[in-house]
Amino acid sequence: MLPRILVCGNLRWAHDELHALFDGLAEVIIDDAPNRTDFFGRFHPGGQYEGTVGIYRRNISAARIGVFDADLIAGLPPSLKWIAHNGAGYDLIDIQACKAKGRSCIFVSNTPGAVDEGTATTALFLIISCLRHFSFAERSLRSLTWKTPISAGATHDLTGRTLGILGLGGIGLYLAHLVHAFPMRVIYHSRNRRLDVPEWCEYVGSLEALCEQADVLSVHVPLRAETVGLVGEKAIRAMKRGSILVNTARGKVVDEEAMIRALEDGHLSSVGLAVFPNEPSINPRLFEFPQNALLPHVGTRTQDSERRMEVRALTNLRDFLTSGAGNDLVPEMRV
Amino acid sequence: MLPRILVCGNLRWAHDELHALFDGLAEVIIDDAPNRTDFFGRFHPGGQYEGTVGIYRRNISAARIGVFDADLIAGLPPSLKWIAHNGAGYDLIDIQACKAKGRSCIFVSNTPGAVDEGTATTALFLIISCLRHFSFAERSLRSLTWKTPISAGATHDLTGRTLGILGLGGIGLYLAHLVHAFPMRVIYHSRNRRLDVPEWCEYVGSLEALCEQADVLSVHVPLRAETVGLVGEKAIRAMKRGSILVNTARGKVVDEEAMIRALEDGHLSSVGLAVFPNEPSINPRLFEFPQNALLPHVGTRTQDSERRMEVRALTNLRDFLTSGAGNDLVPEMRV
Repeated sequence: MLPRILVCGNLRWAHDELHALFDGLAEVIIDDAPNRTDFFGRFHPGGQYEGTVGIYRRNISAARIGVFDADLIAGLPPSLKWIAHNGAGYDLIDIQACKAKGRSCIFVSNTPGAVDEGTATTALFLIISCLRHFSFAERSLRSLTWKTPISAGATHDLTGRTLGILGLGGIGLYLAHLVHAFPMRVIYHSRNRRLDVPEWCEYVGSLEALCEQADVLSVHVPLRAETVGLVGEKAIRAMKRGSILVNTARGKVVDEEAMIRALEDGHLSSVGLAVFPNEPSINPRLFEFPQNALLPHVGTRTQDSERRMEVRALTNLRDFLTSGAGNDLVPEMRV
Repeated sequence: MLPRILVCGNLRWAHDELHALFDGLAEVIIDDAPNRTDFFGRFHPGGQYEGTVGIYRRNISAARIGVFDADLIAGLPPSLKWIAHNGAGYDLIDIQACKAKGRSCIFVSNTPGAVDEGTATTALFLIISCLRHFSFAERSLRSLTWKTPISAGATHDLTGRTLGILGLGGIGLYLAHLVHAFPMRVIYHSRNRRLDVPEWCEYVGSLEALCEQADVLSVHVPLRAETVGLVGEKAIRAMKRGSILVNTARGKVVDEEAMIRALEDGHLSSVGLAVFPNEPSINPRLFEFPQNALLPHVGTRTQDSERRMEVRALTNLRDFLTSGAGNDLVPEMRV
């Protein structure tokens, strides 16, 4: 019997690749368990999911079986060795539970690289919209009032302004290249200084120093216990009066209350957001500031990005099956 | 008596430069004539505008004295030798009337370069918005429906798509550099092939061939008699089914009826517009296609761009006063 690969969350674009990648290597099963109890039951001997060695996972599966928390991980069978997450952010998977599972742990991979353009483009769009008040301008046009009442004095070109990038992974670096074309000045802060980036990407030693210099701060760190509320009162108040905060990472990395207080007293001139702490609900106070640019969580929502992510996650599983060592292990697994 | 410079349309940012540039060279007068008849009267001997040699002009002055048509040009005194227009597009000045005026004509300059970033950034914003349906997504969020019902299959990343630039002047070339950072493929058509551009800017010999290859067509030609309706039925139908049309130049360069027909039958998937044939009114049928991105005419509406344009136009007048030969003459004057 071939080992089984379980697709948790539907496949949208890479059907041909699915068959090409696993032909003769594994039997692919599409998970349709209506709830977690039913899901667990299918792994029992003789069950539909018996012998599953790898899971392809999308966040959408949470609607049926919940997030991959400690309880779900505990219920997975010893045969299960790899979870290939489709996405850059894997905050809905309990990595510590995966590391502690069984004799050799469950490996978890994500899809870095595949999301870089989609998310960086979203951040660039929000940066332009906030600096130029384009979201406000478009609503003004569509309400038939033509231009907004806001003076051009409150709007700015990108050139010569400083973009502060918090977290210089693939997305942050892609964004750096996009704004360098204007050029904006680019500074960044990460846990570690990167030696493989162009010299115009200037490293700044602390979050506070980054905030002090940035006209626009763009957040690109993953959501982890230590990044919850990382951009809080102290960081926001370290920013210049009238500066802009952009978040395309995860809503909870920013302290929403501190951000809204700063909008209310004019310390922040606007915010550009595609992520929120309690998606899909939105804090209605964000609508009170007309210059804000607010998108739903669509950073990677294009046919091209979605297809790249699917192929990458499936390839991680295939590489694990053929070599025993897949790629794109999440950083916590590489320690 | 010092020669006089007349400011037609208020100065917003460059007050200090105004005094520095003309100190000891000219007397600067701010035009506040309530109508054209009154305006003409002030040039008479002994009048407030007597001895005016140069005019600084903004389109906003049209609300009082009308556009600079043949009638207005005919009424200007023989002393008047230079009109420094603030803006890239000078379609509201009758250039032929200026050329035919008096013994040595009236020279007209515009502000190329100063508008490049502002307008190219606007075009980039509209390209992203159309490819990703971000305008639609933001309206969806703000109506509390979170993501739009449109499938990700209708949305695209920029990378690997082809941008067709119609008119490779300063704005078009600036845009070329911005999208090359992704990279998009860049092709262009202009009256003449440019030899001073990077090799990845590919020249295409006809508008029709440009349209055939472009996934997104961005318009950057000035409005002249020969460019009215230049992007018409034939050009639009030469584009691929599902392609995108972006216009930040002048509304009348595109045949609006042909464009709307193409939206209606799906030949164009969306349009991104910051200019319209009858500004400030908007054809309400453009609102029927939710994926359209529609901004008011704000391409250069930033403090930085407006200041650059003012300083550039004033400098053109100053150079004329000091050397008799100012810069930035419009192309028709250079023949």
